[in-house]
Amino acid sequence: MADKLIIFDTTLRDGEQSPGASMTRDEKLRIARQLERLRVDVIEAGFAASSNGDFEAVQLIANSIKDSTICSLSRANDRDIARAAEALKGANRARIHTFIATSPLHMEKKLRMTPEQVLEQARQSVRFARNLVGDIEFSPEDGYRSEVDFLCRVIEAVIHEGATTINVPDTVGYAVPELYGNFIKTLRERIPNSDKAIWSVHCHNDLGMAVANSLAGVKIGGARQVECTINGLGERAGNCSLEEVVMAVKTRKDYFDLEVGIDAQHIVAASRMVSQTTGFVVQPNKAVVGANAFAHASGIHQDGVLKARDTYEIMRAEDVGWTANKIVLGKLSGRNAFKQRLQDLGVSLESEADTNAAFARFKELADRKSEIFDEDILALVSEDNVHGDSEQYAFVSLAQHSETGERPHASVVFTVSGKEVRGESDGNGPVDASLKAIEAHVKSGAEMVLYSVNAISGSTESQGEVTVRLQNSGRVVNGVGADPDIVVASAKAYIAALNKLHSKADRVAAQG
Amino acid sequence: MADKLIIFDTTLRDGEQSPGASMTRDEKLRIARQLERLRVDVIEAGFAASSNGDFEAVQLIANSIKDSTICSLSRANDRDIARAAEALKGANRARIHTFIATSPLHMEKKLRMTPEQVLEQARQSVRFARNLVGDIEFSPEDGYRSEVDFLCRVIEAVIHEGATTINVPDTVGYAVPELYGNFIKTLRERIPNSDKAIWSVHCHNDLGMAVANSLAGVKIGGARQVECTINGLGERAGNCSLEEVVMAVKTRKDYFDLEVGIDAQHIVAASRMVSQTTGFVVQPNKAVVGANAFAHASGIHQDGVLKARDTYEIMRAEDVGWTANKIVLGKLSGRNAFKQRLQDLGVSLESEADTNAAFARFKELADRKSEIFDEDILALVSEDNVHGDSEQYAFVSLAQHSETGERPHASVVFTVSGKEVRGESDGNGPVDASLKAIEAHVKSGAEMVLYSVNAISGSTESQGEVTVRLQNSGRVVNGVGADPDIVVASAKAYIAALNKLHSKADRVAAQG
Repeated sequence: MADKLIIFDTTLRDGEQSPGASMTRDEKLRIARQLERLRVDVIEAGFAASSNGDFEAVQLIANSIKDSTICSLSRANDRDIARAAEALKGANRARIHTFIATSPLHMEKKLRMTPEQVLEQARQSVRFARNLVGDIEFSPEDGYRSEVDFLCRVIEAVIHEGATTINVPDTVGYAVPELYGNFIKTLRERIPNSDKAIWSVHCHNDLGMAVANSLAGVKIGGARQVECTINGLGERAGNCSLEEVVMAVKTRKDYFDLEVGIDAQHIVAASRMVSQTTGFVVQPNKAVVGANAFAHASGIHQDGVLKARDTYEIMRAEDVGWTANKIVLGKLSGRNAFKQRLQDLGVSLESEADTNAAFARFKELADRKSEIFDEDILALVSEDNVHGDSEQYAFVSLAQHSETGERPHASVVFTVSGKEVRGESDGNGPVDASLKAIEAHVKSGAEMVLYSVNAISGSTESQGEVTVRLQNSGRVVNGVGADPDIVVASAKAYIAALNKLHSKADRVAAQG
Repeated sequence: MADKLIIFDTTLRDGEQSPGASMTRDEKLRIARQLERLRVDVIEAGFAASSNGDFEAVQLIANSIKDSTICSLSRANDRDIARAAEALKGANRARIHTFIATSPLHMEKKLRMTPEQVLEQARQSVRFARNLVGDIEFSPEDGYRSEVDFLCRVIEAVIHEGATTINVPDTVGYAVPELYGNFIKTLRERIPNSDKAIWSVHCHNDLGMAVANSLAGVKIGGARQVECTINGLGERAGNCSLEEVVMAVKTRKDYFDLEVGIDAQHIVAASRMVSQTTGFVVQPNKAVVGANAFAHASGIHQDGVLKARDTYEIMRAEDVGWTANKIVLGKLSGRNAFKQRLQDLGVSLESEADTNAAFARFKELADRKSEIFDEDILALVSEDNVHGDSEQYAFVSLAQHSETGERPHASVVFTVSGKEVRGESDGNGPVDASLKAIEAHVKSGAEMVLYSVNAISGSTESQGEVTVRLQNSGRVVNGVGADPDIVVASAKAYIAALNKLHSKADRVAAQG
């Protein structure tokens, strides 16, 4: 029987560390549920010791997700590890993932520690963690740029202390497949107790080779776990893409001869959910999940594809969750149809009240818009998730006008701690005027670092979904808003971002 | 001395075949100039026989670009080859790239030819082409899925007839690095006259491994030409990315030991130009050219990066053309500063009149907007390129209003063959109303398949750049519009797309 390849998803940890991709606890839980639906083996839910918000997110996910192993990242010290163990208490299966840098550059410049100090700290941390949880993963950060003899000593020591998974990160995305595969092979051959642990790969995409490097670590190096993220989300050029690595192993089973447990049908829904939650667009020519990834899904039927699909397609769009039938619901659709569609899209709302609220918004939208697409439903639900009752600011209404030769003007009504206020401003365009109208009252002083509109496939009758990224005192937050009126969507997004800025949370940065 | 790796860019041919990425002749020339500035060795400018428009684009580029070899694709028949040779007449260095499918599936289902017929046609075509041009590239389409014995016979025959470059496409993106590298190695070892040609790789990214596959073809297989596109543009999941493959070879010179002639400083400008021209966004986590690709370019200074940049970065953002200083021009900037900035951004306008027109638009924009960013200038110039005097439709003015509880309304004035008309409509949002106002007059019947807004880094004071993709009778076109008012930008984009639909051009589809 073929070996199993363990899929370890770190969208919620390494992915979320990407500047601007931070998510709320509820957003994280929603994505975790989708990862469970995908049958991801291990979900790295966060870095519990980095902030109270991260602790709560890990805890919530550990208490809610039953099928996947839930993992928390942790620096190699007792405090971090104890915090991780505490957050994971409710998990069916818990894993602590502890790390310390082992490359000369990182030890000297970042840690300011000697190799012997690093070795000792790694050893002690794994020993401490092993008393709390049975499933321990250890990562030598910047492992691929570490000196091999030293790395062998560290890894042998942590396996001896009870580490069950050894992950070798190419933290800076410097590897090429042949070298990375052989690097892991060498480690496994040289370390006497290497067969006592499962080996894992963690690659970054700075040179565009994260997927190929990961798979070389598997094929040449004998690794049996791949760390990856939905849409390849992650710092800089991101991590290995879950959807690409999974479909490569499935499509080239003749070569890899490995089993993966992933239910690929939920891939596209997961991709959309992550993109909509973070505001990180997926480019049309992205493999597997890009709008153009499948020839026939782009609406163009080319001669070759019509004659035989295999001439140009090696995967079927349906297998990863692309559906040909896009118009899904309308004005007359009932609550059950709506609930069923949410389920098909991989969205599960927390309570009956949430479902009712979402359905009410759906009916309101259906009154204004004849055809409701999947995008609309996802936008509606993701927005629903953003605005809780407890928020500082809430959108009420907006009026705006622009005319060639005049300066655009907007008036926005919104609530501050429940009290209605009105802001007015002009601006370079109606969106600019509307955001300035809000800012005129709030005076957040935040700097806008990104404004993006998710591409709408189909006509402008669809809802527009806007992401606004604000930066203030070193913190970066995203707000998402959706509405058929792009100016209103922008105002909602701005208010959502202000709410996130308002709920202050400091956190420690980690890399991996 | 290290071998040279030839960079063959096919953004204008394989990239442009991506549904929705079609470009006008002038847009293609502008990109070709940028490719020349990048010092691309070979520019595949189009597929001359596929349409009159493509013929003219290849001809214009062949007459204008002096430093790069200019190549035209051509099916393996005398008519196509003669057309290609004719279009290339003015080139300093011309190449004809002829192809025919050699995989059992493609021969049977698409060509409906026997292997012997294919072999004979390949041989005759190269013989014919060799009489017209000295530099002949031959591609066995779907080569990687072809039967090896047969492929060896075909390649040996075409080298015998005078083919100087042999390109082995992984047309469907099915390869993995080790297998693809060894496939090319095997071919080179088994074909007696293989040393008479330069070997080339052409990989698609369906499994996310186009760059790694290409480089395995180089490292293991001994290929010395890589075919690639800016941003990895191309059908489905696209082609090997020029920026990734070039930076991998440069960054890992210790491993590849190859020279590349590319001037990487122009990479980011090329990426933006291709993205803005086609409306294909680049995701933030795209390697090298994504907004987040470099940690310090994202505006976030992380602890590790501050301590020593090398801890997390293997390339320098400046080396690929990212500039830290983003505010470039303002109201008081003169014509020379504007021209200089255009030059720095890699934009060269055709005539003095074009420069004057662009400068006038710049001054007009500077009146409305205090800080002018690179994005603004590029948007301004790319729009300038879209609207010629000869266009059927031209934007004049727009007024729109939206208010919560009322239906948004817009009134748009534009010209049809020089005559002013006014369209009015309501819609789901102000953008929808404006586009419906235009359509109410034009009655194109076109279906909108995509509406996208390029992400704005910085505040909404910037210009918004909108892409509208329309489909009509099987044709897909993109229109791009830019304005500080997103509603106006949308109307301009819609009009630009209508103009493209109006200038009908039929063409033959090719794959590679």
